[in-house]
Amino acid sequence: MEEKQQIQEFRFGEKTNRRRTRTMSVAASDQEEEIEEGKGKEQVVDLDHGDPTVYEQFWQKMGDRSTIVISGWQSMSYLSDVGNICWFLEPEFTKQVRRLHQSVGNAVTEDRHIVVGTGSTQLFQAALYALSPPDAFEPISVVSAIPYYSSYPSITDYLKSGLYKWAGDAYTLKGDEPYIELVTSPNNPDGSIRQAVVNRDGGTVIHDLAYYWPQYTPITCLADHDLMLFTISKCTGHAGIRIGWALVKDKEVARKMTKFIELNTIGVSKDSQLRAAKILQVVSHSCEQLGYPEDSESFFKYASRLMADRWDRLRDAVSQSGLFSLPEFMPESCNYAGEMTTPHPAFAWLKCEGGIEDCENFLRGYNILTRTGKHFGAQGNYVRVSMLDREETFDMFIERLSNIRL
Amino acid sequence: MEEKQQIQEFRFGEKTNRRRTRTMSVAASDQEEEIEEGKGKEQVVDLDHGDPTVYEQFWQKMGDRSTIVISGWQSMSYLSDVGNICWFLEPEFTKQVRRLHQSVGNAVTEDRHIVVGTGSTQLFQAALYALSPPDAFEPISVVSAIPYYSSYPSITDYLKSGLYKWAGDAYTLKGDEPYIELVTSPNNPDGSIRQAVVNRDGGTVIHDLAYYWPQYTPITCLADHDLMLFTISKCTGHAGIRIGWALVKDKEVARKMTKFIELNTIGVSKDSQLRAAKILQVVSHSCEQLGYPEDSESFFKYASRLMADRWDRLRDAVSQSGLFSLPEFMPESCNYAGEMTTPHPAFAWLKCEGGIEDCENFLRGYNILTRTGKHFGAQGNYVRVSMLDREETFDMFIERLSNIRL
Repeated sequence: MEEKQQIQEFRFGEKTNRRRTRTMSVAASDQEEEIEEGKGKEQVVDLDHGDPTVYEQFWQKMGDRSTIVISGWQSMSYLSDVGNICWFLEPEFTKQVRRLHQSVGNAVTEDRHIVVGTGSTQLFQAALYALSPPDAFEPISVVSAIPYYSSYPSITDYLKSGLYKWAGDAYTLKGDEPYIELVTSPNNPDGSIRQAVVNRDGGTVIHDLAYYWPQYTPITCLADHDLMLFTISKCTGHAGIRIGWALVKDKEVARKMTKFIELNTIGVSKDSQLRAAKILQVVSHSCEQLGYPEDSESFFKYASRLMADRWDRLRDAVSQSGLFSLPEFMPESCNYAGEMTTPHPAFAWLKCEGGIEDCENFLRGYNILTRTGKHFGAQGNYVRVSMLDREETFDMFIERLSNIRL
Repeated sequence: MEEKQQIQEFRFGEKTNRRRTRTMSVAASDQEEEIEEGKGKEQVVDLDHGDPTVYEQFWQKMGDRSTIVISGWQSMSYLSDVGNICWFLEPEFTKQVRRLHQSVGNAVTEDRHIVVGTGSTQLFQAALYALSPPDAFEPISVVSAIPYYSSYPSITDYLKSGLYKWAGDAYTLKGDEPYIELVTSPNNPDGSIRQAVVNRDGGTVIHDLAYYWPQYTPITCLADHDLMLFTISKCTGHAGIRIGWALVKDKEVARKMTKFIELNTIGVSKDSQLRAAKILQVVSHSCEQLGYPEDSESFFKYASRLMADRWDRLRDAVSQSGLFSLPEFMPESCNYAGEMTTPHPAFAWLKCEGGIEDCENFLRGYNILTRTGKHFGAQGNYVRVSMLDREETFDMFIERLSNIRL
């Protein structure tokens, strides 16, 4: 299971290199054979994983404003803020996180402890560690409603922890044992707005709000949950920085999450925190100072237009082909934009119609790599398609999809 | 156990802040009470954890040569080198790691896979994951000879993994079950040169060579083990970068370690890798171009002189006091220095003589914070003292230690 998940998550390694240099494919080798024998030299369009390179051009436009300079003698110590529960948290990063949430209005930061992590993936595990009873006889059940993020099962189970274990679909959770529910909203893969579904005593909830930003969904409320996870990867596109943050209401939970990160990586890169702070500062500045939605250099305006354009083109392609369907989203009033906006999720949850049961395999025949619904606990006639790849990749995808006929 | 370990490892958090701002103490609160009531306003000298700030002045001297500049549009993708087993490894970092080992001659890099990690702590866990049988009925035993690094037990056991478990002193390992032995050489805490002690079938060894650099020990051979861990923290003093690397002989082990890091943090900060590459480049350059040991800007010459001076002063203080003893080290021929050099470990393994059974507590009475030998599986009349703190801290330590009488 974990093996399979992992292959789905990141399909890299030297074996695929020879071909990739020619085809840019990052497909697993068996699939590549198929591609080699099938469409021959046609370039493989990989929209399987969600590498958020879509915003590169914005950051090129910003030029030196988002450049960071670090001297060799800076930030050598393990320590950043010894008075803070999260002693490796850079004060400038804290400041910019609070400022951005205030500018966007998507989450409460007052009376919240901020815990920084090496991406929200590490914070997710820190939260499991913090919320699991330390001395329970059985590991606590970790659940999420189908369709759930495809990496949750493997990240929960890869170390066979005695503290927590993956228990699948939140709707099928039995008994009255303690549990941890993962709520991703907007949801990965399908973009839906979600709430906890179990809602009984002995349960705690981790809210993964990685996609709760104006370019993906209307900001309809100030999120005010006990434990909220965010990542710079999906907000600004800087996945390579590996920085996420948690907004935590309970001091003891923040302390335990910090302890997990101490034990796991003895803190979080200061260089990454300083660079992330600079990037978030530029985003806040582009919104506050330059106005939204008028100014073309407002990051969220730029990103919203871009996502809207991609979704329009995707829906056109889908209707041209006639073989697929997509979720429909209703416009809502966005507190940030000050107007009605329509959701444009980071992933398209594409359904194959016309009796095609294995949509991933079907699209692979056209050298389009996506992720089967099966990995999200759903059916194989669904696939998740990344909407965040570079323009040329997305163009090829749209062109191929619109020409697919039975 | 883990709790205790952790408190020993990093004693931070808001509770200690009020006092620290006055005393710079990072002592646990109960100890602070004692300090408050004891020596009153006297500044606490914290040499408990090994924060390697000792080299800051060298890097200030290097000025812009070690400065890194990163633009906002750079390294946004998760991916660094999709053709590499370790797909998140920055090629420039690889190049500088190989170059440094070649300059120093401390480890073989030919025919080795390099896996980068968020510090060697993450790589240690990646190695446990890679070397543990995935489907064993019982977790594999992880052992290390006493005195062992005080964090090994807690890092091994904090998630109660079903894959591996801490089994203590390597000398007491019973039975013929598979095992993983941790060999730290030079050893933390006592600076001794070590080899595996179990040496039977079904065992694998992780060599932690964090301190196998010329400023700490003579480079007597080219290390050529199956799995070797290094970290920039102790080599150049850049702990805040959180970068370590593993030299791995077996491709499958490298692949599994990479998978662990995928699942744990989806790769390693590119910013940190790029900065680490720059720092390592400056070190190699300072040695290769500027010559060793003649030129004063050779990093290892600078660091070696500094460590030698600190050890001379420590031995003087110990002899003045008459209450303590230190390990003795014999000079050996260093292939790097091209002459006989004496070990000057990053930690002093200080023994209280004269019937003092709790050395940590005894020194705390003089506002000197150290780590009791008990956390290393040894006796309480030993403490580990960091030799890598800033000059002013070390000066205070020497002054106090030399004046301690019974």
